[in-house]
Amino acid sequence: MAEISYDVLGIGNAIVDVLAPAEDAFLEAHGMAKGAMTLIDAERAEELYAAMGSGTEASGGSAANTVAGVAALGGRACFIGKVRDDELGSIFAHDIRAIGVDFHSAPATSGAPTARCLISVTPDAKRTMHTFLGACVDLGPEDVDEDLIAASAITYLEGYLWDPPGAKEAFIKAMGAARAAGRKVALSLSDGFCVDRHRDEFQDLVEHHVNLLFANEQEITSLYEVDDFNAAIKAVRGKCDIAALTRSEKGAVIVAGDEVHVVSAEPIDAVVDTTGAGDLYASGFLTGLSEGRSLPECGRMAGIGAAEIISHMGARPEVDLKALMKEKLG
Amino acid sequence: MAEISYDVLGIGNAIVDVLAPAEDAFLEAHGMAKGAMTLIDAERAEELYAAMGSGTEASGGSAANTVAGVAALGGRACFIGKVRDDELGSIFAHDIRAIGVDFHSAPATSGAPTARCLISVTPDAKRTMHTFLGACVDLGPEDVDEDLIAASAITYLEGYLWDPPGAKEAFIKAMGAARAAGRKVALSLSDGFCVDRHRDEFQDLVEHHVNLLFANEQEITSLYEVDDFNAAIKAVRGKCDIAALTRSEKGAVIVAGDEVHVVSAEPIDAVVDTTGAGDLYASGFLTGLSEGRSLPECGRMAGIGAAEIISHMGARPEVDLKALMKEKLG
Repeated sequence: MAEISYDVLGIGNAIVDVLAPAEDAFLEAHGMAKGAMTLIDAERAEELYAAMGSGTEASGGSAANTVAGVAALGGRACFIGKVRDDELGSIFAHDIRAIGVDFHSAPATSGAPTARCLISVTPDAKRTMHTFLGACVDLGPEDVDEDLIAASAITYLEGYLWDPPGAKEAFIKAMGAARAAGRKVALSLSDGFCVDRHRDEFQDLVEHHVNLLFANEQEITSLYEVDDFNAAIKAVRGKCDIAALTRSEKGAVIVAGDEVHVVSAEPIDAVVDTTGAGDLYASGFLTGLSEGRSLPECGRMAGIGAAEIISHMGARPEVDLKALMKEKLG
Repeated sequence: MAEISYDVLGIGNAIVDVLAPAEDAFLEAHGMAKGAMTLIDAERAEELYAAMGSGTEASGGSAANTVAGVAALGGRACFIGKVRDDELGSIFAHDIRAIGVDFHSAPATSGAPTARCLISVTPDAKRTMHTFLGACVDLGPEDVDEDLIAASAITYLEGYLWDPPGAKEAFIKAMGAARAAGRKVALSLSDGFCVDRHRDEFQDLVEHHVNLLFANEQEITSLYEVDDFNAAIKAVRGKCDIAALTRSEKGAVIVAGDEVHVVSAEPIDAVVDTTGAGDLYASGFLTGLSEGRSLPECGRMAGIGAAEIISHMGARPEVDLKALMKEKLG
């Protein structure tokens, strides 16, 4: 059996975020689904960008944020994702490497530009995302190195990968390689609408292929088409080893076989921008697992990660996460 | 005489900032002059960027920040500066227009990429800047539309323009056009090292061509090669109509003929990043002037603008500046 080189290998859409404050009226005027991630084409991306206010740019992407958080917490992390050989692609590659993540995926030399996600942050700190996938559609199974997967304790996949066809194939190949090597597979359901688009396949994944599931309340109730959170807990129980189900300020519930752990949300002064909350929740949880911690402790680390990221704009940590964790956990 | 269409027309280097936190040891290890702006070539830019931590990108440029602030305060603003037709150039153009500044300069279709400024922000909130001028070196007198200048009450120029030769010619042309049309010329000295590079010419400018001068303590003492601030006040008196001299937390002194106004710094909870402090100081001051306010009031508006910008990362306002000003001034 191959040696473990990475605690977590993430595969996801490689995206640069463009963040700008917006009023609710702006979302309404432009027919934007508040709180959701909507896929858009190049033309709509130009139209929305022209309408958005002055913004800032920061590297993003769900699984990329998660492995960036793992690395920031001292875990060994690797990322597979596709950028173009353009300016935003260089920024993405720089940032993920600078935080300590191994990133070897060759940039595309032709085709669409590096993906961008236009994020409107409303005064209630909620983010509404419109993603132009760009070069992400060029990610395919050929980008998945099975030796890397075999050398990673956990392969972490974002549900968003189910959208671009090549990425879905890459996802399936990675999942198979992980299982063949006796490694664990973690999945984030990503977004309620994403679950709607792929419900049957996601149900099958969770039941037959995934060890560790991350979902928020909206995603897990959508997955099982149930009305309330308790029904969702009941539905997911036994489907995978561990399900970490988040409920924003109401904290999270971790379901693992017969165990159920309720973990309170980490207190926070002011929520500025919720972009990346779920991603950094997963960072904390996965790092806790790789350190051999108990599930409630993993949940606590997850909550601390999420609390840091929502206290400022953008989805990558702004403080020394490792030091913060040490301070909080004692 | 042409009608006034703009309160302030700014001419400056069109730059995208790349901001990342850094320790003092990082500056020392890479031979970086703390607190200063150093010009670098493409090779050094790549080397420093590779060494920098994960960052965020935001539109910047000294005079560009100033006119962005004027527009945010409700003034009529226009900007002349050169980007390339690349991704960072699109971001720069988007952001300055989105905040309400007219920006018509055609992007360069060949040559160096859009300029970037690598900004290391140390824990004391000081910023150390390394600028790759890129496409800014393509700005020339042909980009200066004399009708635009004649239609602007104040033409605001940054000292940094004296570095690229074409921009210096553009500067001189703009200054001549403003004076020929009976308009005012404002100059920011930009940076102590920039003053060192061009001292004699800047002294001549201030004495013979500039109505309104912005400088911080380091810049004005460097300009007149004096040891202390009071000597600098004495030296600049009578050289131009108004000199607004800033001293960070010690506030500012406004010298206008026989008048001297001492204005306290605006109180602030925590200084996060001083990038753009001088630029937004100028925004507040110029907007106050265009509203016909007294010099102490202009100084107060300037201080409020500076205080907002140093309370967060980046050099463009993050709140509704106009509303903030109304709240503070009553």
